[in-house]
Amino acid sequence: MMRADIDVRVCEVGLRDGIQGIDQFFPTDKKKAWIRAEAAAGVREIEVCSFVPPSVSGQFVDCEEVVADALKLDNLTVSALVPNLRGAERGFATGVNKMNFVLSISESHNQANVRCSREDSLDRFRQIAELRGSTAENREVTLAVGLATALGCTIEGQVDPGEVVRIAERLLELGADELAVSDTVGYANPTQVRDVYRLLRRHLGDDVLLSAHFHDTRGLGLANVHAALNEGVRQFDASLAGLGGCPFAPGASGNIVMDDLVFMLEAMGLKTGVDLDALVVVREIVAAGLPNEPLLGAIAKAGLPKGFAAAHVAAATNF
Amino acid sequence: MMRADIDVRVCEVGLRDGIQGIDQFFPTDKKKAWIRAEAAAGVREIEVCSFVPPSVSGQFVDCEEVVADALKLDNLTVSALVPNLRGAERGFATGVNKMNFVLSISESHNQANVRCSREDSLDRFRQIAELRGSTAENREVTLAVGLATALGCTIEGQVDPGEVVRIAERLLELGADELAVSDTVGYANPTQVRDVYRLLRRHLGDDVLLSAHFHDTRGLGLANVHAALNEGVRQFDASLAGLGGCPFAPGASGNIVMDDLVFMLEAMGLKTGVDLDALVVVREIVAAGLPNEPLLGAIAKAGLPKGFAAAHVAAATNF
Repeated sequence: MMRADIDVRVCEVGLRDGIQGIDQFFPTDKKKAWIRAEAAAGVREIEVCSFVPPSVSGQFVDCEEVVADALKLDNLTVSALVPNLRGAERGFATGVNKMNFVLSISESHNQANVRCSREDSLDRFRQIAELRGSTAENREVTLAVGLATALGCTIEGQVDPGEVVRIAERLLELGADELAVSDTVGYANPTQVRDVYRLLRRHLGDDVLLSAHFHDTRGLGLANVHAALNEGVRQFDASLAGLGGCPFAPGASGNIVMDDLVFMLEAMGLKTGVDLDALVVVREIVAAGLPNEPLLGAIAKAGLPKGFAAAHVAAATNF
Repeated sequence: MMRADIDVRVCEVGLRDGIQGIDQFFPTDKKKAWIRAEAAAGVREIEVCSFVPPSVSGQFVDCEEVVADALKLDNLTVSALVPNLRGAERGFATGVNKMNFVLSISESHNQANVRCSREDSLDRFRQIAELRGSTAENREVTLAVGLATALGCTIEGQVDPGEVVRIAERLLELGADELAVSDTVGYANPTQVRDVYRLLRRHLGDDVLLSAHFHDTRGLGLANVHAALNEGVRQFDASLAGLGGCPFAPGASGNIVMDDLVFMLEAMGLKTGVDLDALVVVREIVAAGLPNEPLLGAIAKAGLPKGFAAAHVAAATNF
């Protein structure tokens, strides 16, 4: 068997999770420039928008245009969030490669976030999966589901891991291809991350693609990535410059920082396919598009270690 | 055997490593207040000063007074950095509980940092160890050594792990009680941390106390702590509010943030003995003493997870 050219897949979610809470409109041309530059830096998957109605967010009125531009790029999986059947219809019409549905494990959070019960959310996903199965073209599209608040909830506090398993099983029965264990509010710790992946593996078997969507709100984002790596997780969401802080915690960070994530993985000898120097430069596009947003990230401030590139080339993957 | 009342020992180094590079003098009364408040919050070991000559740093002209005050506190190991025999003489005179000597694994860094070769540094340590052995009172004092640049060097780049072992063995022969593997410049990654502790254990045996002194300059501080925990390390240096950024990398962080470290450990079910709410309040003393320094840390910004205290009490230690 040929050796895979990357060890870990990193997925940019800044253009969706990163900007969805920001009032300032991120200009369409700068969204396209961001996607093009980050794909050129080697990132293989980018969630480029959210197919929500304009009444929910003005940030995504340009979805169709952004997706169309992104689909011109080689070697890029173009994904988009779809909240319901209507969003999925728009998504299928654009020819997006992958759709991400989100459901909260916490009932209260699901009600607060998407204004329906988890059962209703499961039914929405069932409708989307049926639409996916309805044509040969649609069947080319991957369906992923984010298990929001899988590791804690701002309303309910601790979340029962048994509920994560139960809902994960339902989603797989309905046709989900991937499940993203999501620390939506940055509550997780490494022991908990280890435990929930082990539990899911035990119940779901080895073949289900389990990815990780972690936030760094309480500083443990990359420690949690390390714990997930130890459990065999090889796909991680992140946001360039950590875009996407929580409006309820001023100064608190949001998604884990893509640039720092790539640094950690590459430093560990895990190939991401990403050119770190080129990636850091993409931050300038984000800064230009959102001049009032703080950009986070340690590598961008401190620079790469001396001799890092050479060491990286020489390092055997011994993780 | 009685169960130890803590699982992991956290050592505050902000009063030494955190403030040594800051021009502004941290007022003596505020140093004492910081130490008292952090000890009251449950931190069992604080490095309270550095016995360097006033010509090297004006920050530590009040060493004797600060140590004398700290020694009045119960349940606190009072430690201090000693750069040489003269510093150690001052330290023994104060009755400090523990002395920390520092030597760089990188020859160039040792020259740049303490202006002598590693061999000369080893000789300085030999003199200190001899002085320690010279009286019954001195023999009560613990001698620890920080293995600076053990995980990378801003001058030499990568550092040979074999050199870490070689110098560690020399230091143990000379009488070191503890060795702190130090990521002085924030170059380390979790795989490297795992490998160096395994190598040291293999060569030094199971009885040597190996602690960790990590910096968060490139964002991997707590991920590296997680890797060290996995290797059995149970003693960590940290600095409240992450005090101690590098003057050569503006905005870059320094020591790992004590408050976030304690949050991670407690969240993982590892008892530190520290009251996290009380610890976060101590930041106000640091802010008052150093009004121009940025205070870092995610927990102080984002707050503890909902239900955290209750969960902590209920959690079994299952790490």
